[in-house]
Amino acid sequence: MRASIEVEQFHQTLIVVDAQQVSHWDREVLEELRAGSCTSVNVTCAIWEDARAALENVCAWYRLLRAHSDLIVLARSGSDVVSAKAAGKAAVVLGFQNTSPIEDDLGLVEAFYQLGVRVMQLTYNNQNLVGGGCYEPNDGGLSRFGQHVVREMNRVGMVIDVSHTGERTALEAIDASTRPVVATHANPRSFYEHPRNLSDVVLRALAANGGVVGVCVYPFLVGPGDVTVSRFCELVKRTVELVGIDHVGIGTDLARKQPDERLRWMRMGRWTHDADHGAGSPVNDSWPEWPSWFRTAADFPNITAALLDSGFSRTEAAAIVGRNWLRVFEHGFEAE
Amino acid sequence: MRASIEVEQFHQTLIVVDAQQVSHWDREVLEELRAGSCTSVNVTCAIWEDARAALENVCAWYRLLRAHSDLIVLARSGSDVVSAKAAGKAAVVLGFQNTSPIEDDLGLVEAFYQLGVRVMQLTYNNQNLVGGGCYEPNDGGLSRFGQHVVREMNRVGMVIDVSHTGERTALEAIDASTRPVVATHANPRSFYEHPRNLSDVVLRALAANGGVVGVCVYPFLVGPGDVTVSRFCELVKRTVELVGIDHVGIGTDLARKQPDERLRWMRMGRWTHDADHGAGSPVNDSWPEWPSWFRTAADFPNITAALLDSGFSRTEAAAIVGRNWLRVFEHGFEAE
Repeated sequence: MRASIEVEQFHQTLIVVDAQQVSHWDREVLEELRAGSCTSVNVTCAIWEDARAALENVCAWYRLLRAHSDLIVLARSGSDVVSAKAAGKAAVVLGFQNTSPIEDDLGLVEAFYQLGVRVMQLTYNNQNLVGGGCYEPNDGGLSRFGQHVVREMNRVGMVIDVSHTGERTALEAIDASTRPVVATHANPRSFYEHPRNLSDVVLRALAANGGVVGVCVYPFLVGPGDVTVSRFCELVKRTVELVGIDHVGIGTDLARKQPDERLRWMRMGRWTHDADHGAGSPVNDSWPEWPSWFRTAADFPNITAALLDSGFSRTEAAAIVGRNWLRVFEHGFEAE
Repeated sequence: MRASIEVEQFHQTLIVVDAQQVSHWDREVLEELRAGSCTSVNVTCAIWEDARAALENVCAWYRLLRAHSDLIVLARSGSDVVSAKAAGKAAVVLGFQNTSPIEDDLGLVEAFYQLGVRVMQLTYNNQNLVGGGCYEPNDGGLSRFGQHVVREMNRVGMVIDVSHTGERTALEAIDASTRPVVATHANPRSFYEHPRNLSDVVLRALAANGGVVGVCVYPFLVGPGDVTVSRFCELVKRTVELVGIDHVGIGTDLARKQPDERLRWMRMGRWTHDADHGAGSPVNDSWPEWPSWFRTAADFPNITAALLDSGFSRTEAAAIVGRNWLRVFEHGFEAE
């Protein structure tokens, strides 16, 4: 598919936010952001890394930001996203998909905030010092340390992400947080029953607290079979019905140019010697095939086109493709 | 001694900067800054620490800054110092006395800058990855990595300090740097011959490049015997004669409330099993007795009084006790 010129022109006027990508960022992939008028992207800066290794990843981003300063800028605030749009650039939100970078050290929340990190997922698949992960058979909820981490993230202005988090930990984090909690990349379990997707209870609590859920294109989370554009639109509609138009965004989980070794590391880190298939399966253990209508960020106009085709108004489409995330960034990145 | 009311009142109008303290900072010591109208102090955040440990020290400062926000603020720019003065607070400049916190990782210069570190000494007594230290018998000069560190510090706006640095490394750093290089706490060797003091060649090169040297009250660096106020004034005068009134400041090296164990750690870190006496000696291995006229930062008015008594004009005294450092901070802390 290809968006019409009229839709393409409308799309170009929008703030477009991808709330999660795990891509391998080279110049070509960064240029795809511009090609798709993607105004801002939350990039994964750590998965299993400790403080020192996460620091190195942040520094690698500083280098990338300098090397491609014609294409990208660091987003420290919501207004940086708006400025990036005006400058024809993409604003990079540094994010952690785990709390491993803060180790057992509450002070590191503020330290990484000062370094530019603006989103942190409480757990990644597994139990950690903060709480339970989505693939754990038992989730003991937010730990004592986790309570402090939520409070500290609230204080400094780092957005709490519960995408890969266990049910109980997610609910307790939403309850403990005085500010909106988000799921940058997850789908409703009531659309596709999968441990990496979120229950209606979690999604409703998240929305009631002002949060946003990023509907995920990652094929393993949409359901078996091809991710057709109509199925994706059905997913968005069901999510909007569940939590309301103000609480739905996009978080593609796109993994451009990542080799299978990276996928294995994302799933298995150093914590297991056995195969772990994450959202895949023993017979489906590689990166999934992405749908023809969304292979890179350059395809973002297709999402806008599909939303309009499926009956969303222009205002609604604008909210979904970026305005809702911008609201989260504008309020969420400020210190309390 | 006690400054007259008139001098005390004059002193209170000044920007007063202590370019180096290694004190143990509790509320009482912070209150001494206010009592002495000390507007800004460069505090030692790392001596032998690696990246992770230095990060923890920075976080400890964040906590201290929050806990005593009525007394201190973080100085990220020269104007933060001016604002602190207006608010009746002291502006804390975070500094490293070694490049150990950046390990072998050039990216960490910018990372620690983002965290608030504004001054970094290239070496501390010993050879490191960057260059030679003041107590090394041989100084091979600025290393290949050191050249990059100087350039990177120039770029991000972190001030280069050569107080404990070897002669050749100091000269090569001053030569390599496109921005003023400073010695936050060292005296002229031509006043007192000591390896921790700096040669006329280094001091003249530093001044020619726009730098400032912080005259040091630390008794071991002033010479044998009591540090009388007249001897201190003689030291300041000789330094001014050597480098000019615009290039002399104060860097007391005050170590309030630090136990002898701390002194031993500062000297010996983990790099030796033998005794190392730093600027002390085998028979003089503890913290020195500080002069009666400067035991804490509350005594800063005595320095102003002594400078005026010894013939410096009010403008000259103002330059020495803080204006020169403020100039360094105002220009030096900005990115290139």
